[in-house]
Amino acid sequence: MDEIQETLKINTDLAQSILTNFIKIEIERSGFERAVLGVSGGVDSALSCFLTAEALGPENVLALHMPYETTPDQATQHAMEVIELSGVQHKSLDIAPFVDPIFERIPEADRVRQGNIMARMRMILLYDQSVDFNALVMGTSNKTEILLGYTTLYGDNACALNPLGDLFKTQIWQLARAVEVPDEIVHKAPSADLWTGQTDEGELGFTYARVDQLLYLLVDQRYSPEACVQAGFDEDFVSEVIRRIQRTQFKRMLPPIAKLSNRTVGYDFLYLRDWGT
Amino acid sequence: MDEIQETLKINTDLAQSILTNFIKIEIERSGFERAVLGVSGGVDSALSCFLTAEALGPENVLALHMPYETTPDQATQHAMEVIELSGVQHKSLDIAPFVDPIFERIPEADRVRQGNIMARMRMILLYDQSVDFNALVMGTSNKTEILLGYTTLYGDNACALNPLGDLFKTQIWQLARAVEVPDEIVHKAPSADLWTGQTDEGELGFTYARVDQLLYLLVDQRYSPEACVQAGFDEDFVSEVIRRIQRTQFKRMLPPIAKLSNRTVGYDFLYLRDWGT
Repeated sequence: MDEIQETLKINTDLAQSILTNFIKIEIERSGFERAVLGVSGGVDSALSCFLTAEALGPENVLALHMPYETTPDQATQHAMEVIELSGVQHKSLDIAPFVDPIFERIPEADRVRQGNIMARMRMILLYDQSVDFNALVMGTSNKTEILLGYTTLYGDNACALNPLGDLFKTQIWQLARAVEVPDEIVHKAPSADLWTGQTDEGELGFTYARVDQLLYLLVDQRYSPEACVQAGFDEDFVSEVIRRIQRTQFKRMLPPIAKLSNRTVGYDFLYLRDWGT
Repeated sequence: MDEIQETLKINTDLAQSILTNFIKIEIERSGFERAVLGVSGGVDSALSCFLTAEALGPENVLALHMPYETTPDQATQHAMEVIELSGVQHKSLDIAPFVDPIFERIPEADRVRQGNIMARMRMILLYDQSVDFNALVMGTSNKTEILLGYTTLYGDNACALNPLGDLFKTQIWQLARAVEVPDEIVHKAPSADLWTGQTDEGELGFTYARVDQLLYLLVDQRYSPEACVQAGFDEDFVSEVIRRIQRTQFKRMLPPIAKLSNRTVGYDFLYLRDWGT
């Protein structure tokens, strides 16, 4: 965290104001007043919870904690701390009774497949609870994981709106500290907790501090790969990150529809704003 | 089916050729050779199965039948007929052991919520099996249901590519007959079989023949609501269909991300084609 370069520093007051406004306006123009979100105990969902509570009022926010046996006790404690500090409503749903029957029926599924099943099961529960609570589902994916495709499609990346998707992980840390997410949540090693001992940086093979700087140059500053190498990044690292972005593009777009007509959903039928009825 | 107007008639040979090419090219350029799809016994998934088998070879296609207790025996028989006629590989997975524990834990969920849980559970299984089979997930949603939002977000509308999304339901019927999907599958009342006795047209409150004509005028021909009324459609029906399209726009787009930076996923970071590495 001390390695955050100047270029990735954000004005946290401004970001907080833009994001709470975004949440309020997006929810209201969709005809809702309430939001539901998954709270894992990690920093992303903690930040999303704090911002949503500020935007809508804590009584209009339902935090769902959905542990499995791979969820460390500490993560559950952190989730409860986030819920208490933000003052939101909450519910806990253990996903073991829902995913274990699938794991038993499909024993050949490895831990990555099991992890995807768990992430998607949480999506199912969030969307179901959103009907009960008359609310929209808040996203908690950050820009780093979205660009790297380090998400489960139709799982943790599923939402109605995402206030965090344009903040790199190192910027999430900055904003989380500014809105007073507890230090131990901001400082712990990020993990999806899909299996015991999993950490993001261990699985990815690089640190967020380093990859955020590279992504900033590649994406925001439109540097060529060569220019990134000249800026001091290892050539293999640059290639690996670019390959990751390319390979996971499908997670950042709608599925392509075969075009047969004048006006196809996703191509030339995109907006409704000219439909003034 | 006899009510199909001239304007909705398609050249089935041309459509078949475009769609099988689309499937082959999209799968191959993604680095795959195989596809997996859910086969319910209905006409949409039957057509998708026939086209995919033709495009990739039946040995490269895995059809997954995922019945629940609301699935009529006839639907399962139709699914098996589709699998046999197209010659694809197949697997059956009863979803009852997976969804019943959720229904027991959340007894307040009505049949619509239960239906969404079932549709999403099928998505989980399709995506998991796609890893096992090293394949992409084929979509089976048609243009009518996509425009009306008559789908489950992250459920039956989840896929890697969709060959049917630009065909109205009445056009699906035409193409299905042309590729020799059995008559009894083409002719039966469309149903998601999410509860006993459910039919699409009963639930929607209008026929596909009628709504397809209206959607064609509104969307493909860009008629104003007034022009649709002048063309002979009931004013209330026109308003209802427009409201349905507007209300379900969120199902046809990526979730909005709050914009904070130079280049945001979904806005100005869209394509990778300029990344020639």
